[in-house]
Amino acid sequence: MIAEMKVMLAEKYGFCPGVRNAISTAEKVLADKGRVYSLGPIIHNPDVVERLAKKGLVTVDNVEQVPAGATVLIRSHGASYEEISHLKQKNVDIIDATCVLVKRMQQIAVQMEREGYKVVIVGDKNHPEVRAVLGCTGNAVVVGDEPDISKTGSGRLGIVCQTTQSPEFFGRMLSAIAGAGFDELKVVNTLCKEAIKRQQAAVELCLKVDIMFVLGGLESANTRKLAELCKKYNSRTFHLQNWDEFDKKQVFGCKTAGVTAGASTPQWIIDDFVKNLSEIDAG
Amino acid sequence: MIAEMKVMLAEKYGFCPGVRNAISTAEKVLADKGRVYSLGPIIHNPDVVERLAKKGLVTVDNVEQVPAGATVLIRSHGASYEEISHLKQKNVDIIDATCVLVKRMQQIAVQMEREGYKVVIVGDKNHPEVRAVLGCTGNAVVVGDEPDISKTGSGRLGIVCQTTQSPEFFGRMLSAIAGAGFDELKVVNTLCKEAIKRQQAAVELCLKVDIMFVLGGLESANTRKLAELCKKYNSRTFHLQNWDEFDKKQVFGCKTAGVTAGASTPQWIIDDFVKNLSEIDAG
Repeated sequence: MIAEMKVMLAEKYGFCPGVRNAISTAEKVLADKGRVYSLGPIIHNPDVVERLAKKGLVTVDNVEQVPAGATVLIRSHGASYEEISHLKQKNVDIIDATCVLVKRMQQIAVQMEREGYKVVIVGDKNHPEVRAVLGCTGNAVVVGDEPDISKTGSGRLGIVCQTTQSPEFFGRMLSAIAGAGFDELKVVNTLCKEAIKRQQAAVELCLKVDIMFVLGGLESANTRKLAELCKKYNSRTFHLQNWDEFDKKQVFGCKTAGVTAGASTPQWIIDDFVKNLSEIDAG
Repeated sequence: MIAEMKVMLAEKYGFCPGVRNAISTAEKVLADKGRVYSLGPIIHNPDVVERLAKKGLVTVDNVEQVPAGATVLIRSHGASYEEISHLKQKNVDIIDATCVLVKRMQQIAVQMEREGYKVVIVGDKNHPEVRAVLGCTGNAVVVGDEPDISKTGSGRLGIVCQTTQSPEFFGRMLSAIAGAGFDELKVVNTLCKEAIKRQQAAVELCLKVDIMFVLGGLESANTRKLAELCKKYNSRTFHLQNWDEFDKKQVFGCKTAGVTAGASTPQWIIDDFVKNLSEIDAG
């Protein structure tokens, strides 16, 4: 007798409006131009990048690699003001698919600096979103953990946060910054509500199941944050890119499985995973 | 043989510039006018209040009790804009001895409100300094502990702190406010550096001695904060107003004693206490 695995999906998961916009923009421009350059992977999902590459999207590492006169897509994570001005000098056609929340954060950081605040970006210094905001400001600093606090100084600090971090992390860093002494803090909540909803739904679900799968690119910050949170509440949590990475040993003894996916994980990968997992013999 | 108690004073203790200014202002005006009204006790120290009362300082509870045409002293904790305007209507001579840091906090709170922030005052809602700031704003709220956070809402919050609180308390409340969700926080550090220095010196000293005495009025917020901090690090901590409250049983078995005093505790009370304590037989 085959006992099928009971698979449950999180209340909220997968593509966010920013990612959806970046992909549909890319598809529209590709249909028109045939070849478009993307400054870095358009989203942190290799499957989607591969699909779009077949349609003519060329991923480059930096502005140098963009030919003059080409069409360039600015991905949802944004680009620094320096990169944009460099692109303009090359006389390229710029298609801006920066997520509106990321754009807002860039503008807030620039405005804070204009108002005399030292800008502090709470987040991962290696993430392209954070690097782009950093590149829009003169001398911002990034705080990724407690030891970084020493970099902020104790004057007038203007604080923003990488959009895909969790409120807990933002709150913890804020408390540490305040505890180190300051004259004035201006803190704007730049967290993405969509990302927070995915985090809450993932935690809720992982508490109810024997095993939890978080689907998405290994480079995807929001997917990694989902996996990190779920692991806290359900140690049997796996961050997989797609069904190819599934191993039957993972579900040994499990009768219920939860599935969620990051904001850059396409629906087809989730559907494929859920279908295959449901058919696993959990007996 | 008499074994004398070794008494050590904290590195920093006693009168702060704000209190010193309020008292010297009162003495100057009393010498000139003979009778001066104080809106509430000039400082939270009954001994000092009694001394000044003998020179003609009349403490009243509210503006109603001030006769028209009299001379009124605004104490270091300040007064609300409403009280000041009420006093002006009575055609009294106003002598303003509000501590410059309290005045600054009032101005910051009013400015924040003008900029559209909901003002949050972190501190004790019953303390006259906090009540005065509250009375300068339209609809500020006071946060004295975690359950108060629900009063702040989650919009644009402008946050200040009662000058005599500790950085730890301010940081803890900030973290709780941020954790409850917000759009924007503007936080100005309104803590008094003099008070912080007294707190640090008190903690340092209380760790080195068998018993710790914190001298000052029981209503004095900064003295209470000193005692609260010392109690955390040395459970044998006593908050006394003066030598009259000393009980020999307190020092039983102690060879070393630490002494500190709040910002409103006059030097003569400290000198008297230290002299008497040093002569105690600790054998």
